[in-house]
Amino acid sequence: MATTPIQIHTSDEAPPKPGDTYVQSFARGLEVIRSFSARAPRQTLSEVAAASGLTRAGARRILLTLQTLGYVESDGKHFALTPRILDLGFAYLSSMPIWNRAEPVMEALVQEVQESCSAAVLDATDIIYVMRVPTHKIMSISLGVGSRLPAYCTSMGRLLLAELGDDELRARLEASAPQPLTKHTVTDIDALLAKVAQARRQRWCLVNQELEEGLVSIAAPIVNRAGRAVAALNISGQANRTSAKVMQDTMLPALLEAARKISRML
Amino acid sequence: MATTPIQIHTSDEAPPKPGDTYVQSFARGLEVIRSFSARAPRQTLSEVAAASGLTRAGARRILLTLQTLGYVESDGKHFALTPRILDLGFAYLSSMPIWNRAEPVMEALVQEVQESCSAAVLDATDIIYVMRVPTHKIMSISLGVGSRLPAYCTSMGRLLLAELGDDELRARLEASAPQPLTKHTVTDIDALLAKVAQARRQRWCLVNQELEEGLVSIAAPIVNRAGRAVAALNISGQANRTSAKVMQDTMLPALLEAARKISRML
Repeated sequence: MATTPIQIHTSDEAPPKPGDTYVQSFARGLEVIRSFSARAPRQTLSEVAAASGLTRAGARRILLTLQTLGYVESDGKHFALTPRILDLGFAYLSSMPIWNRAEPVMEALVQEVQESCSAAVLDATDIIYVMRVPTHKIMSISLGVGSRLPAYCTSMGRLLLAELGDDELRARLEASAPQPLTKHTVTDIDALLAKVAQARRQRWCLVNQELEEGLVSIAAPIVNRAGRAVAALNISGQANRTSAKVMQDTMLPALLEAARKISRML
Repeated sequence: MATTPIQIHTSDEAPPKPGDTYVQSFARGLEVIRSFSARAPRQTLSEVAAASGLTRAGARRILLTLQTLGYVESDGKHFALTPRILDLGFAYLSSMPIWNRAEPVMEALVQEVQESCSAAVLDATDIIYVMRVPTHKIMSISLGVGSRLPAYCTSMGRLLLAELGDDELRARLEASAPQPLTKHTVTDIDALLAKVAQARRQRWCLVNQELEEGLVSIAAPIVNRAGRAVAALNISGQANRTSAKVMQDTMLPALLEAARKISRML
């Protein structure tokens, strides 16, 4: 579903604007939630205020609200999120039953190729993981559902960027501010445009050690009935075990078939 | 961290109460998010209003706010959550790095016992899954991170309820309104109190087909340095493949050892 301006406003009620108090209070509450992380699992009032750009009074009001609602707990000095927060993301995932139905297909693919398989969708300049079936090998990066990665340097990201129109695509790539994450990372906008165009033509995408040294991944599109890639499926592995060539020659057909199976469920 | 009233209010600013506009707007926004589900992945304005107990005008305001913030998308008639919602749950999970560190221990346990392993925490009368390592067998129920189950009829739930004081425990069990989900489900409050007391004494808990016919599970506590069970770890399987007796005799020692390993990481 594309994000288009909706048409249901009546003349007596204007749509909320980013400056509205109502929008702002909600946005700030969500910013406070997002200020908690692996680096800051427990924060004082001052830390939350600093991390979310609020005054101490503003941060306190939001924290106490979140505490009243059971989303934050406190020992009197430190604040931490409660697991109730998971309900919100779970509302999204359970509203997308496709991923539960896709899981067995992904499991079978992992069994066949003995590499991890993930599914992701595009959000602005990032991909967000919506399902992951790991192999039982130790991975160098740990990615769970909800993890974000930049789209420009990932196989699923480039395939999903390929759905955008030319102007929007260039704008997203520029907004990504590409960084040389490894010595292989393509950062030049025109070179990235060419990579995305290639992904669009061939309907799959391989990225070789551009996100992290030693990490290779290959992606195929999950396509809705209108022929639009709404998500991507990938296999990722270690280059020293599975070269890009081996991945393309031996695993791509199984990946494309799995992506087609999942697409037919949409 | 226990949820205790915090002490930082200054006399010029009262803490927010559930009736405050600020709390209400936030609570309603979160209710609207939670109104989306597998049964209602895409909703009209009227459907959202009905599901979340708001007027059409109120629901519209929240939906447009969520759309402005990128958490909801619309085609003009229907609304749906976007994957950005996952950021909120991810903030919680990434603020609990213990679960990433626990994953390899859980993987090893699954390899050893060939049954699924999960971890959960208590939220009021429910347990919420925070990590799950499935076997590659087909399961009759699909549970992912963020899934909720009633505490009173699950092995992890009873073990976590055992941490509560007597009055609080009885109140939670009564608030659970136990239902005979199968012919084995214990629903009598005093009988449940005895089951929880047993779990407290033995420091593990087995539940045999009380949640679902054919489903057996056994749980061990994940204990912090103060000796308090802050989470639980379980193995679950099918009774026709793994009887309760086999689970207790052959898998409990490995489960207890895995739970001790994870506890030492806290």
